[in-house]
Amino acid sequence: MVSAQRSLQENEELLETLRNELITFVDQGQMELAAARIELFHPADQAEVIEILPEAVRDRLLTTLSDEDIAEILDFLDEEPRERFVSRLDNAVLARILVFVDEVVAADIVEQLPDERVQPVLSQLANREEVSELLSLPEDCVARWMSSEVLSLRSDWTVQAAFEFLRKEKPNSGEHFYLYTVDEDQKLQGVVSIRDFITAPPEVLLRDIMVPDVIRVSQTTDQEQAADRLRHYGLLALPVVDETGALVGLLRADEVLNVQVEEATEDIYLQVGLGADASPFSPVMEAIKVRVPWLIINLLIGFFSAFIVSRFQATLEQAALLAAFMPIVAGHGGNAGSQTSTLVVRGLALNEISRRDVGTVWRKEASFGVIYGLLAGSLTAALAYAMSSNYGGSGQHSWHLALIVFLAMFGNVVMATLGGSMIPVLLKHFKVDPALASTVWLTTLTDWIGFLLLLGLASLWLKGGM
Amino acid sequence: MVSAQRSLQENEELLETLRNELITFVDQGQMELAAARIELFHPADQAEVIEILPEAVRDRLLTTLSDEDIAEILDFLDEEPRERFVSRLDNAVLARILVFVDEVVAADIVEQLPDERVQPVLSQLANREEVSELLSLPEDCVARWMSSEVLSLRSDWTVQAAFEFLRKEKPNSGEHFYLYTVDEDQKLQGVVSIRDFITAPPEVLLRDIMVPDVIRVSQTTDQEQAADRLRHYGLLALPVVDETGALVGLLRADEVLNVQVEEATEDIYLQVGLGADASPFSPVMEAIKVRVPWLIINLLIGFFSAFIVSRFQATLEQAALLAAFMPIVAGHGGNAGSQTSTLVVRGLALNEISRRDVGTVWRKEASFGVIYGLLAGSLTAALAYAMSSNYGGSGQHSWHLALIVFLAMFGNVVMATLGGSMIPVLLKHFKVDPALASTVWLTTLTDWIGFLLLLGLASLWLKGGM
Repeated sequence: MVSAQRSLQENEELLETLRNELITFVDQGQMELAAARIELFHPADQAEVIEILPEAVRDRLLTTLSDEDIAEILDFLDEEPRERFVSRLDNAVLARILVFVDEVVAADIVEQLPDERVQPVLSQLANREEVSELLSLPEDCVARWMSSEVLSLRSDWTVQAAFEFLRKEKPNSGEHFYLYTVDEDQKLQGVVSIRDFITAPPEVLLRDIMVPDVIRVSQTTDQEQAADRLRHYGLLALPVVDETGALVGLLRADEVLNVQVEEATEDIYLQVGLGADASPFSPVMEAIKVRVPWLIINLLIGFFSAFIVSRFQATLEQAALLAAFMPIVAGHGGNAGSQTSTLVVRGLALNEISRRDVGTVWRKEASFGVIYGLLAGSLTAALAYAMSSNYGGSGQHSWHLALIVFLAMFGNVVMATLGGSMIPVLLKHFKVDPALASTVWLTTLTDWIGFLLLLGLASLWLKGGM
Repeated sequence: MVSAQRSLQENEELLETLRNELITFVDQGQMELAAARIELFHPADQAEVIEILPEAVRDRLLTTLSDEDIAEILDFLDEEPRERFVSRLDNAVLARILVFVDEVVAADIVEQLPDERVQPVLSQLANREEVSELLSLPEDCVARWMSSEVLSLRSDWTVQAAFEFLRKEKPNSGEHFYLYTVDEDQKLQGVVSIRDFITAPPEVLLRDIMVPDVIRVSQTTDQEQAADRLRHYGLLALPVVDETGALVGLLRADEVLNVQVEEATEDIYLQVGLGADASPFSPVMEAIKVRVPWLIINLLIGFFSAFIVSRFQATLEQAALLAAFMPIVAGHGGNAGSQTSTLVVRGLALNEISRRDVGTVWRKEASFGVIYGLLAGSLTAALAYAMSSNYGGSGQHSWHLALIVFLAMFGNVVMATLGGSMIPVLLKHFKVDPALASTVWLTTLTDWIGFLLLLGLASLWLKGGM
């Protein structure tokens, strides 16, 4: 842990230096020096340097590290570099390394393997049954994110017996642990505080000093729900139980933190039609496969907008200046509505908006829409009036254009705030994630309504002999 | 901890029941029953029920709870309800309650008070010096998020002496703790694993069993950097030291989790011009104050788009169908570019894209832009051809319109992917958060370039006697 007191900046520079040293050592064939050098660092830093090493250097370096060291590095590697890394190890070596890895991480690694490697690797694992069972569970449940290394003490042991057990077991979570107690069937019964454990007389039974009713999650709980629970109760970890109530693992807050960062990335990606695994470095052909479908859907929605506008060709020929106000009426409705939908989407996600509140939010947003619609409509109408010196070929400023622009902008802003507050609620009702689909639906709505209002009103007016 | 085994759904229903019971008890004046009932729940659940109680009921209930109970509830309340809650307590009561609250939370609460209450409350606090010092530190540094309750053992104590100390001190973090060791100046020296502590002979000195070089953060570290560090090393907590290296607090992973959720909300809000404190429930007038400035900036950008388009009035009069393709060319450029900018913004935020990688990403995105530009351009050109039966008054399908639309779409998509990969990097270079400003700049760019390309090309062509 050389890195204890360094700033992140210094850490980055130090890892850059380490990278260059390793390249030099490996190039000179001084493999032992290289191994000794990298082993001075925390496995998290080792993983980081491995990620930025040239492939040839990395491969040679790996042959000199112990299986246990490599296992520790695997634990800290991000998903994508880990996959690349594992692809360079043959099945026997990988199986040997996975012995030293938590079975939850092992399941993760096996799952990422190409299909033809899964069985050969699995069959060589000592804990293949546990790993296979984990693989059979859905990817977003707690069992796939917990740590399966959890310490359990029998509640009918004495404090003395528990001490002996700890002395023998040497729990490897060096800095902390929870003392969970279980019954003879491994069912979670309680938790003993370290203080009570240390200060109780040796002959006392754990069941007499434990706190019963530990807050827990089931291994099939959705990870987001588990994360909410952990945050709600301000805990550093949650014990995980199976369907019989037996203690099977521990969900740690730092793991949840990792998951949340990954999920946030996924959500942000999905919003613009990027797959969860998208990367700025993926090859162009892969990018096309992943990104084009969403773009094509957007293109088709755009086609329909084009179709709407094209229906008003005659109107536009008479009053081409209308075209200048199409983008602003449609786009600004989108802007105003996106504020509303963002508030509502986030409020729903954080459970701040309950069913009881939906009506209140709608009324507030509608009021906001009316007030802001009046303001934005007036400003845009003023611009329209100023620009309208040749509207409809009259050669004069046009109150008509100004009024049409005002009504279209006002109407679209009001519809946008209403839509922005209703679309997320409707999507949630139909079990679609509001965070992902709200923006697309909202901007489609504001585009179409904006064009229809602006061009439709103008068309009526012009037909009326404006 | 009645809630140990309930699902979130069940928990919500139970809290709803509790709410109704409390209302009934309070209405009947059975205050002790109400207090006894709520005290059966975890403070986190008490806080949640307090949030949904009618104000009158809440105020009466509070008068029957002990200061210590209220302090625990304050600890779990979200910022906004906490502010409301605190506004109902008078200065003396609040000061009495704050005695039971961690000084970091107390500083947070005092900071939210209206100016005229700050000094009166501060002056009544026993730990006013510590709280004032915290208040003098920037809001986003670790000191404002850590827990100041951290246990420290002197490294020159024997294991026996440490045992005695723990027996007396009764550390109140019941389920876990870290055994940090310090020297006579309270300087952080190491950490003792619980196992080593339990199993070492009583006369051994802590310094002989501690792990030196603990990974730590300084109290003035930016909280995001500290969070990165915690995630990087997979830790449940980081010890926090002051400028002399003295141990002053503990940054817990669950606190970091809370901060990250709050920060994510802030970022998402700022992206659509909502202040960090925006709420779906804030009064309309406040919403106007907070939301309108950003909307007006967007409106002005839109005004400039309108101005660009208005310069091509003559062109649009000749070929009104062009107007139908304005939104799709501009908007779809925005769609394609937003994928790129999202990848780059996220890559920069997670430190996946370093300076070394920028060139690679630009080249890949440019290739993607060219390939997808050809596809989107062709599809849109086909639509233009199909729609063009009366383009420019010719009465025939127009290859010209199709070609212009193709070129405009192709050009805008390529510019969008280039812009999407460059804008975030430039913003970061100029110390503007790419996550916040990239979208606005990108869509402004794609709007303007889209209109200029489409209408500009058409104008040249028509002038050339198309």
